[in-house]
Amino acid sequence: MLFMVQMDVIVPHDVDQAAFDDLKAIEKARAEELQRSGKWRHLWRIAGQYANVSIFDVDDAGELHDIMMSLPLFPYMKVQVTALCKHPSALAEL
Amino acid sequence: MLFMVQMDVIVPHDVDQAAFDDLKAIEKARAEELQRSGKWRHLWRIAGQYANVSIFDVDDAGELHDIMMSLPLFPYMKVQVTALCKHPSALAEL
Amino acid sequence: MLFMVQMDVIVPHDVDQAAFDDLKAIEKARAEELQRSGKWRHLWRIAGQYANVSIFDVDDAGELHDIMMSLPLFPYMKVQVTALCKHPSALAEL
Amino acid sequence: MLFMVQMDVIVPHDVDQAAFDDLKAIEKARAEELQRSGKWRHLWRIAGQYANVSIFDVDDAGELHDIMMSLPLFPYMKVQVTALCKHPSALAEL
Amino acid sequence: MLFMVQMDVIVPHDVDQAAFDDLKAIEKARAEELQRSGKWRHLWRIAGQYANVSIFDVDDAGELHDIMMSLPLFPYMKVQVTALCKHPSALAEL
Amino acid sequence: MLFMVQMDVIVPHDVDQAAFDDLKAIEKARAEELQRSGKWRHLWRIAGQYANVSIFDVDDAGELHDIMMSLPLFPYMKVQVTALCKHPSALAEL
Amino acid sequence: MLFMVQMDVIVPHDVDQAAFDDLKAIEKARAEELQRSGKWRHLWRIAGQYANVSIFDVDDAGELHDIMMSLPLFPYMKVQVTALCKHPSALAEL
Amino acid sequence: MLFMVQMDVIVPHDVDQAAFDDLKAIEKARAEELQRSGKWRHLWRIAGQYANVSIFDVDDAGELHDIMMSLPLFPYMKVQVTALCKHPSALAEL
Amino acid sequence: MLFMVQMDVIVPHDVDQAAFDDLKAIEKARAEELQRSGKWRHLWRIAGQYANVSIFDVDDAGELHDIMMSLPLFPYMKVQVTALCKHPSALAEL
Amino acid sequence: MLFMVQMDVIVPHDVDQAAFDDLKAIEKARAEELQRSGKWRHLWRIAGQYANVSIFDVDDAGELHDIMMSLPLFPYMKVQVTALCKHPSALAEL
Repeated sequence: MLFMVQMDVIVPHDVDQAAFDDLKAIEKARAEELQRSGKWRHLWRIAGQYANVSIFDVDDAGELHDIMMSLPLFPYMKVQVTALCKHPSALAEL
Repeated sequence: MLFMVQMDVIVPHDVDQAAFDDLKAIEKARAEELQRSGKWRHLWRIAGQYANVSIFDVDDAGELHDIMMSLPLFPYMKVQVTALCKHPSALAEL
Repeated sequence: MLFMVQMDVIVPHDVDQAAFDDLKAIEKARAEELQRSGKWRHLWRIAGQYANVSIFDVDDAGELHDIMMSLPLFPYMKVQVTALCKHPSALAEL
Repeated sequence: MLFMVQMDVIVPHDVDQAAFDDLKAIEKARAEELQRSGKWRHLWRIAGQYANVSIFDVDDAGELHDIMMSLPLFPYMKVQVTALCKHPSALAEL
Repeated sequence: MLFMVQMDVIVPHDVDQAAFDDLKAIEKARAEELQRSGKWRHLWRIAGQYANVSIFDVDDAGELHDIMMSLPLFPYMKVQVTALCKHPSALAEL
Repeated sequence: MLFMVQMDVIVPHDVDQAAFDDLKAIEKARAEELQRSGKWRHLWRIAGQYANVSIFDVDDAGELHDIMMSLPLFPYMKVQVTALCKHPSALAEL
Repeated sequence: MLFMVQMDVIVPHDVDQAAFDDLKAIEKARAEELQRSGKWRHLWRIAGQYANVSIFDVDDAGELHDIMMSLPLFPYMKVQVTALCKHPSALAEL
Repeated sequence: MLFMVQMDVIVPHDVDQAAFDDLKAIEKARAEELQRSGKWRHLWRIAGQYANVSIFDVDDAGELHDIMMSLPLFPYMKVQVTALCKHPSALAEL
Repeated sequence: MLFMVQMDVIVPHDVDQAAFDDLKAIEKARAEELQRSGKWRHLWRIAGQYANVSIFDVDDAGELHDIMMSLPLFPYMKVQVTALCKHPSALAEL
Repeated sequence: MLFMVQMDVIVPHDVDQAAFDDLKAIEKARAEELQRSGKWRHLWRIAGQYANVSIFDVDDAGELHDIMMSLPLFPYMKVQVTALCKHPSALAEL
């Protein structure tokens, strides 16, 4: 099942920058691992924003939730979730 | 260049249904043609809505605009455009 | 998989009332059929509004979309969809 | 009487994590107790969010308020309350 | 139980004015009857708007809903409902 | 003259709790005094929220402003003010 | 007592233009009469919009409401009302 | 003086298309005339929308208003106006 | 040229109260000076809010900006600016 | 390709003013360098706000993103991006 997720990262101004950079490195490794597994199918940067648009291919909403909770930057994110399905005019399968 | 476009179709209640169905058939053919050309890269239905999320791969904003104007249902759409670029954690190329 | 759906019905002021009443009767029959099948698990009226909050138990977002499209009042609805999953403090299974 | 309540938990970035974990444990016990009493009838996680949708079955708005005030995480919540009643097409009693 | 209800009346520009005036007369009679019964406890005009703020004293949300549905102008209203309860600093009973 | 005022209290997470409790006690005394004087005609809790809906009966907007400024919790409030007048269908005087 | 009122005029596209022009002429005469009486103290056009910002000097909210109801274009207006009072740094009296 | 104006054109679904096309031709001629005069300094299409972003160089807000009123499509526009001035880091004069 | 400016002052909860009181005193002196100069033509308090509505009479948007930047409380303000011009039904000159 | 970018700068109240002034000086130098290169084609102040409207002329969304990331004040900005293209009534080339 596909979900579109938009993640806006809000960095507190008084964050410990070194600790935050550590989180970002772990986040990057986790994102790459999830992409290789096929769960995180697309990952795009929104131009001019500290934000991304992503497409997840998961078994159900529970798996999506577990993935989001496993992201170390989740506590700093504003998240919007949209459930997708096949469009009648789409040539590709889901 | 990639753009995410969300299209919400609003059908007027007093629309001429036969004429509207004709437009939908032309829209479907146009969408399939644009997908085959590689310009309309992804097309997903938003579950429970008369709406879609799409990814366009175009030369620039002008080409995107021309494509949107060529859609027969455009006059019935609420459209949101978001410019995308490569995410530093993305494995795939744009 | 569970989805919460909020449906607000907007009746055009110049609607053909008899035709609309027919749609409402079909809608009611369809809603009861879907409840009996277990797909439409809960259906509550929002007090003071021509609107409902519903919980659907479906295979995936595609099935939810097909159900929504099968509702005769769908063209008159503003719809919001929220994907649900198990809460760690919930006693009941999904 | 039924109320739908959506609770979004916002954790301050500089929270004392150990103290917050204590609150979460008390919250979980309180939620389970209220579910067993029948007052907190449904509790679902919103996928991808630190948020829930709940259905409360209470005597009146005063009892709902007292319950919400008794939740240790209430000071960290954004809360929306919607009063529900029986839908004419619902098969189940309230 | 008390509910605050805000009603904004939106008159379509092409309304049949005589028929609408009839509805308004029935609405007025119904509002007065509900006030005399004690169900519609307060009714205030919002200055400069075709809108009111009202306090209803009803058994539960179901009764509130039935009252709202009985108002002939309901199809022309945008309605907001807020459940009220006793404030700890209030001198008066609910 | 009547004003409806909605007050949402936002408590900062790092507030000095003892000092805040002192403010709340003074606020309660002030609210009771204003109710006894007839200036604060109604005071209701919004169910599930740290918020109230109030009706003030004052000479003019200046007196309302002075009253609001005299509330010790004002600096922690989000305030909405609505001017009210007699509704043509209201049985009671203002 | 002073009120700031913002009025946005929305002209239906299928309006009878001659009848609407008649209303505008009556509105203009009424606005001038109210300015001469001192009730409509200021009237400014919002640049680029079919809208105005006005300051009314009235006895109370009831008089403001009666004035607004007396404007022939009121049925075509979106209206926002803000109650004003003396600012502690203002040199002029209200 | 510079103003940024965003114009979103909303075409009613039952518009007389030939009459509307006439308006568009006049609008285009008027826009070109205002550009040649230097009053309409920049005119850009918003990609994917029937909308534009414009920069006007006018004597004051009154002249801007007169220009907007002279556009034949103004009755079909949603308009936002933003007053601009010199930025301390800008190399160019206004 | 006239601008309407609405200023909402947001006081941080951990502000140094004595330093803030000093700013308020300077702000008051500056506001009075600008009123005497004729630049700050009207200044009204919004009832029940730490906010004001003001009318400025300035040469252009640049002068308005310089005035706003000269206000010591500007860093604590949410500001909305609206450009005004003569209304065709206004009796007074701008 | 042209993008309109609106940047609203939000300065935290407890910022280290000297460090922030350093950032502003670097930002100014960077803005001037980008203007000289032709990438930052227009830069205007929004009157009365700590905000600007800018037009960027870049190869694609990726270059826009890199430019935004290179601005030292980016972490303090709320950013809105709008893709622009040639308007059919525009006399000038993009």
